[in-house]
Amino acid sequence: MKKKKIVTIGGGTGSFMLLSGLKKYQVDLSAIVSMADDGGSTGVLRDELGVLPPGDVRQCLVALSDSSAMLRELMNYRFEQGGLKGHNFGNLLLSALEKINGNFSSGVEEAAKILNVKGEVIPVTNDNMRLAIKLKNGKTIIGEKELDHNKEIQNIGIEKISLLTKVSAYPLALEKIKKADFIIIGPGDLYGSILPNLLVPGISEAIKKSKAKVIYNCNLTNKRGQASSFKVDDYVEAINKYIGQDRINIVTFNNRKPVKKLIEKYEKIEGRGTMVSFQENKVRKYKIIQADLLNRVKIDFKATDMISNTRSFIRHDSEKLAKLIMMIFELGEYENIIKKII
Amino acid sequence: MKKKKIVTIGGGTGSFMLLSGLKKYQVDLSAIVSMADDGGSTGVLRDELGVLPPGDVRQCLVALSDSSAMLRELMNYRFEQGGLKGHNFGNLLLSALEKINGNFSSGVEEAAKILNVKGEVIPVTNDNMRLAIKLKNGKTIIGEKELDHNKEIQNIGIEKISLLTKVSAYPLALEKIKKADFIIIGPGDLYGSILPNLLVPGISEAIKKSKAKVIYNCNLTNKRGQASSFKVDDYVEAINKYIGQDRINIVTFNNRKPVKKLIEKYEKIEGRGTMVSFQENKVRKYKIIQADLLNRVKIDFKATDMISNTRSFIRHDSEKLAKLIMMIFELGEYENIIKKII
Repeated sequence: MKKKKIVTIGGGTGSFMLLSGLKKYQVDLSAIVSMADDGGSTGVLRDELGVLPPGDVRQCLVALSDSSAMLRELMNYRFEQGGLKGHNFGNLLLSALEKINGNFSSGVEEAAKILNVKGEVIPVTNDNMRLAIKLKNGKTIIGEKELDHNKEIQNIGIEKISLLTKVSAYPLALEKIKKADFIIIGPGDLYGSILPNLLVPGISEAIKKSKAKVIYNCNLTNKRGQASSFKVDDYVEAINKYIGQDRINIVTFNNRKPVKKLIEKYEKIEGRGTMVSFQENKVRKYKIIQADLLNRVKIDFKATDMISNTRSFIRHDSEKLAKLIMMIFELGEYENIIKKII
Repeated sequence: MKKKKIVTIGGGTGSFMLLSGLKKYQVDLSAIVSMADDGGSTGVLRDELGVLPPGDVRQCLVALSDSSAMLRELMNYRFEQGGLKGHNFGNLLLSALEKINGNFSSGVEEAAKILNVKGEVIPVTNDNMRLAIKLKNGKTIIGEKELDHNKEIQNIGIEKISLLTKVSAYPLALEKIKKADFIIIGPGDLYGSILPNLLVPGISEAIKKSKAKVIYNCNLTNKRGQASSFKVDDYVEAINKYIGQDRINIVTFNNRKPVKKLIEKYEKIEGRGTMVSFQENKVRKYKIIQADLLNRVKIDFKATDMISNTRSFIRHDSEKLAKLIMMIFELGEYENIIKKII
């Protein structure tokens, strides 16, 4: 049987989790990755070396790498002292390869060879891309890194995002979307990881033209200011709006509640209504497939493939999500059948 | 036929050149590498991260690597801007692997796997080793990096070197020396790359006990202050003195003169008598095997495996030297036969 062509769209820890699960199955994987990140080690490299942001791509490469555990640990190693403090080794590797090869995507291809990556990791653009975040009060704030910490964003809320300068889609990304059997969006921060991909000219157009089924892995929790008290419909509506069409066919939804303590911890930071929910028995243009997708494994920050990320204690289980997605591949939208099987 | 067990002792560009040539032959190669370097990117990493010096080991790993040209180029890549300026990517890789693995030699082993290294690269010690350089006027200067630029060293000359603190030999280095069929010393800076290895307790003892033939690849040029107007006998005497025995059996010597212009350029920096020579028809405890060992290839600083090094315009040709050494392996000390064949 011919392998199904899967395109994932996202960035960050969400893509890492999704790809880590999917790579165990016989599918043809292409990960399209946002290039909007400008914080942390990535931000310093962008500013000082003039390179493109390596962080999100690195996580996807590690997820799909079939190399030794040591090499994957090395890719995630962060220097702790001196002038290198805060720099992630894998980011340095990607930046050096970009410099040697003259552009980011060629550097990523070389890194993929070194890391024995199964599938393809594709930056959404080879151009320098910066997010302009327009708040509901009309003010514009520049930089993806502002999303997580900027008090104005958290208190006022986002009206829309756009790109500061014109960029072009990396052609391979468009090609993969056009030929895909399934396009999987998320999980990931709506404004930080998902929508930036859709802003790159050509990407949304390609998604519209593609015959692929579009699956959206809905986030488990909402972020203050970005998606305060969002429900599933709000996420779907936002993504469809940026695509320019009601394109999402299927939504996966976690129906297993985390322990109360963890929810309370989240609500302290993100505000009430942190857990994403939806209204049952409503007619929708898309199907919601529910399952227990919650990661209940105690997070071991020393584990090889773990991306340390304190924001992500309530998170998807990569095996559960991959299993559900594989069932959707087989059974399509027949959510009732899937629900019964699960 | 069983492969001959070869141990090289040195560091820096000399070892890189020697190993690049020897790896093309069916021999069992172990490269023992000085850990005295404390200049440049290596020096910054030592000071800031508390790691051991990666630079010399990196060059040996690249020389013996059977990986892609891209991976080898990456290992030699040097960042040119920002806070990373001057840092060599391969040095960062070794320092990260040392941090992850807890000691330098384990990090080197992991790097060797990643780089698909044929043979073994062995740091002479896993301890922090610093050179104390005693001048002929009695003054002591600390640090290997002083050797190349310190005016006092150049003008007054070196009386002897020692180690600032006690270190232990890495056991694998001792084991390899004991079992070697041939020990090859140099080429390389006498005080910077060769003698520091012999200062590590146990190394000289192991060389004395080993049944191996000892070959010394004599330098082509002398360095001011370190080896001003040295002849072959002076080098051999110095090395034997640090070993504690007339242990060198065979010396390879380049008898092809570089172009006059190049010699003049060297003499401006290193003083008169830059080219190493020796007195013919003298009775010695060792044999001198002469051949054209000069690199006459125009140096391409952009080439993949090239270690940019302006000090090394008069340098050995790695293929010529390896070929001569292979003949010595076959024919022993019969220098007349070798001379005729060459």
